[in-house]
Amino acid sequence: MNAAHGAAGEFDLIARIRARAPLRDDVLLGIGDDAALLRPPPAKLLAVATDTLNAGVHFPADTRPADIGWKALAVNLSDLAAMGAQPAWCTLSLSLPQADAAWLDGFLDGFLALAAQHRVALVGGDTTRGPLSVCVTAHGWVTPAAALRRDAARVGDDVWVTGTLGDAAAALAQWRAGGACDPALRARLDRPQPRVAAGLALAGLAHAAIDLSDGLLADLGHVCAASGVGAQIALAALPASPALQAAFAAPARAALQASGGDDYELCFTAAPAHREAIARLARQTGIAMTRIGRIDADPGVRALDAAGEAWRPAAAGYVHFAG
Amino acid sequence: MNAAHGAAGEFDLIARIRARAPLRDDVLLGIGDDAALLRPPPAKLLAVATDTLNAGVHFPADTRPADIGWKALAVNLSDLAAMGAQPAWCTLSLSLPQADAAWLDGFLDGFLALAAQHRVALVGGDTTRGPLSVCVTAHGWVTPAAALRRDAARVGDDVWVTGTLGDAAAALAQWRAGGACDPALRARLDRPQPRVAAGLALAGLAHAAIDLSDGLLADLGHVCAASGVGAQIALAALPASPALQAAFAAPARAALQASGGDDYELCFTAAPAHREAIARLARQTGIAMTRIGRIDADPGVRALDAAGEAWRPAAAGYVHFAG
Repeated sequence: MNAAHGAAGEFDLIARIRARAPLRDDVLLGIGDDAALLRPPPAKLLAVATDTLNAGVHFPADTRPADIGWKALAVNLSDLAAMGAQPAWCTLSLSLPQADAAWLDGFLDGFLALAAQHRVALVGGDTTRGPLSVCVTAHGWVTPAAALRRDAARVGDDVWVTGTLGDAAAALAQWRAGGACDPALRARLDRPQPRVAAGLALAGLAHAAIDLSDGLLADLGHVCAASGVGAQIALAALPASPALQAAFAAPARAALQASGGDDYELCFTAAPAHREAIARLARQTGIAMTRIGRIDADPGVRALDAAGEAWRPAAAGYVHFAG
Repeated sequence: MNAAHGAAGEFDLIARIRARAPLRDDVLLGIGDDAALLRPPPAKLLAVATDTLNAGVHFPADTRPADIGWKALAVNLSDLAAMGAQPAWCTLSLSLPQADAAWLDGFLDGFLALAAQHRVALVGGDTTRGPLSVCVTAHGWVTPAAALRRDAARVGDDVWVTGTLGDAAAALAQWRAGGACDPALRARLDRPQPRVAAGLALAGLAHAAIDLSDGLLADLGHVCAASGVGAQIALAALPASPALQAAFAAPARAALQASGGDDYELCFTAAPAHREAIARLARQTGIAMTRIGRIDADPGVRALDAAGEAWRPAAAGYVHFAG
């Protein structure tokens, strides 16, 4: 933790972070030196993901500090989950307009609650003065042959998703419309659950995986492009939460599910021979896994509506919150 | 590299970065998946440092993109150097007000020039829309017993610094005064040279080390506080470049050297028995190493002027550029 790069009171902020930062036995040196010193486990590959959340771009201005903290870590753990990696450590680089201990305490409440759920140690970072921005780098470990890559989808694979789709985009649509947000939908926007257990369970079983941050069609498109394949999905098969079903009728709902973003569910492909095994994993982990389509050789991702007609979203990709 | 978190044209930016990102044999998967996959060397500790540079806080607005790119990586490699670590990989999280390919190309020119000097692979990151901000996380490897920590200074140790002090702060003083910047001084502000070779050479020989980002007195104070010791330094012993000597007379110069920041030199402590060995290292690495004082048991850092009188800086710590 390289201190005092700009923020007045930064030493106090770092002391507050350090006092609460969870450690692990494999952390030889955490916050407080020029770099953290960490002991790798034997015979694993290091998985590293980094993502930044900016105020006014990635979350509405009225988002609670605890939710910002949760989400900043969640989007990075979601990336590790999509590799089939076991999370271990993270760093936090926090830019704040001014040193605000109460804001920081709230932020840490959310950040560290999620870190504790996944036994992730916060080992370093910095605090700087600047517009509100949170950059997290997450580190995890994966068995070499079991890593879930984007480029490993094969023709004939089933396409699956975890959990339900569209809730976060629905909350954002409600927020934009100026009405009341359904609390269950808003919770999915503010507190995404990184599918770490699902990613670990699928490592070595699934072929390709990606986490859904930009929307199903866009993200599955990345998998197809990287793998040199295509995909066809059935809109009617996309899993919807009760809250989403109650709040949005079918046509609008399908768009939120297919093109909405911020789901932080996993989309993965696996051989049809593994359908039973995946159903078993879903029961064991308590995480729904739904088969929504098939990988084929035609480039691109095609969505079919309930009548079997080709469906085109209004916009090809999801545009995150932009205030 | 988790794409499309907000910036219009982000896919193009990531493709530009990916096309130029240097790789290494130990990078199994670089930019383009949810996380990078990296192979650790055997029997080493992982050193991780992260630092953010914000426009208007850490660099003047007229800084060239290439210099911003260089410095964003340099400050992180400097942290690894201060641990005695060998750099290996980095991630880059870049927030830009708009997708600007020409700006990005310039930024990468500087960033990748320094990466190439140290054989650092750029393995992931993201680009987002937001006020200009650069968050870099650097990864390196260190032999367990040889790591240079802040808390390892011992009473009786000599205090040393690499290179010369005060040039960057002098350039900033000239810039603030609105006059012409001496190019040699400005180069030290814009293109700090991380002392990686010195850190590696000192690992296992020096006791404690820190990189000088906040100013000698403040940073040596961190070492003393962490080690439970104090230090006395001689202002007259602080190494000054010819450019600094030409531009600033002794009293102002001493303040820049003792309290100025952004030097990115190493300050380290070592047993007096190692003076000859350290002089040899300086010759071998071509990096000046100057003995400037001594660790003692009195808390705090005391600076003595040429007459042997206690010297107090006008401000205890260095305040980085704040535009």
